[in-house]
Amino acid sequence: MERAFDHQLEELKRQILVMGGHVEKALAEVTAGLAERAGDKFALAHEIEKKINEDQILVDNACMNLLAKQSPVAKDLRLILSIVKINTDLERMGDQSVNIAYTGRDYLARPALGHVKEISRMGEIARRMVKGALDSFVRGNVEEAKEILLMDDELDDLKNKVFHDLCAHMKKNPQDVEAAMDLILIARNLERFGDHATNIAEDVIFAQTGQDVRHGGQQ
Amino acid sequence: MERAFDHQLEELKRQILVMGGHVEKALAEVTAGLAERAGDKFALAHEIEKKINEDQILVDNACMNLLAKQSPVAKDLRLILSIVKINTDLERMGDQSVNIAYTGRDYLARPALGHVKEISRMGEIARRMVKGALDSFVRGNVEEAKEILLMDDELDDLKNKVFHDLCAHMKKNPQDVEAAMDLILIARNLERFGDHATNIAEDVIFAQTGQDVRHGGQQ
Repeated sequence: MERAFDHQLEELKRQILVMGGHVEKALAEVTAGLAERAGDKFALAHEIEKKINEDQILVDNACMNLLAKQSPVAKDLRLILSIVKINTDLERMGDQSVNIAYTGRDYLARPALGHVKEISRMGEIARRMVKGALDSFVRGNVEEAKEILLMDDELDDLKNKVFHDLCAHMKKNPQDVEAAMDLILIARNLERFGDHATNIAEDVIFAQTGQDVRHGGQQ
Repeated sequence: MERAFDHQLEELKRQILVMGGHVEKALAEVTAGLAERAGDKFALAHEIEKKINEDQILVDNACMNLLAKQSPVAKDLRLILSIVKINTDLERMGDQSVNIAYTGRDYLARPALGHVKEISRMGEIARRMVKGALDSFVRGNVEEAKEILLMDDELDDLKNKVFHDLCAHMKKNPQDVEAAMDLILIARNLERFGDHATNIAEDVIFAQTGQDVRHGGQQ
């Protein structure tokens, strides 16, 4: 017999996946907006972010209901608390997409610099990270979650490369300071996107194993 | 008769205040390190951050226990879930302090620029925000929490001023790009510090009133 808890949990997982789909879409729009110099895609990101905010409230309410009505313990409780946290991270990813949209608009109004290729690559890694983190969550797959933690290093390396290259560019071409700063800020937004995906992966590991890997714990 | 729940909740509030004290101290050290050009204070921030990470795990476990053993509902449940979130925000503030310590060390190794005064002012506002947010939490005072949301605007304005002034400085003095970038990054870390304090204030309002003010809801 299926427990009521299991049924509601499946529904909650479905809601998280819908929200994750919105997050992926918002990120895809803003990175495409930059790569294709298509400002209209930034407006789409704002629309999608509104949906993400609505998703967040739905998920929070569903978690509250599940905790209040089912009083889960042990692994079930860890799972619900991890969803509360994952929900927050997904919403912050929506914020980051909107930040990229704002800065991207400024950037498109200036003479183009290089480095958009690296930014696109960062966007692609960040997108795979959020997708992978949510897949690992739905399947309860700790090994998949651990892979996400490794991908974050690649994202950080790219962010550092963009930062150093653009600092060097600004020193030689001070007239490009604003455009270079736009790209540096966007690279940092993408890094934070990846940080949130990493948080989700860590929550998956905690929910499944009870093991806290947040502060350099054994992986 | 005092309920067991009330007793454990008081203990949890005490733990959050201890953690908040560590967060304030870490921030005070790094801003003093910058203002006084005293690199040893950055090392202290790393030590304090370790305590914050330990605090986080203690608080998370205490929340898990309280949920599992007392099965709170309604306002009590909202309160515990808000503590789960506040805990995460405080830990991230510790991360931001450490980020400032790393960048601050780089900055002290370069020729000094101006604008440290604005950074110090930002640090002071951020410190008052976290203190105020936690005071509002402990007292369950919604009006105090709303004041924190207003302080965040002041912090954002200062961050924008630092950003624009330093971009103008880099254009005229490209040899100072690295030092200016250090200060820009530190200003952004402080802005994020304030964002976390804002999150806490919003959680307090939600816990007390059930009203969600995260996405432009009525304040």
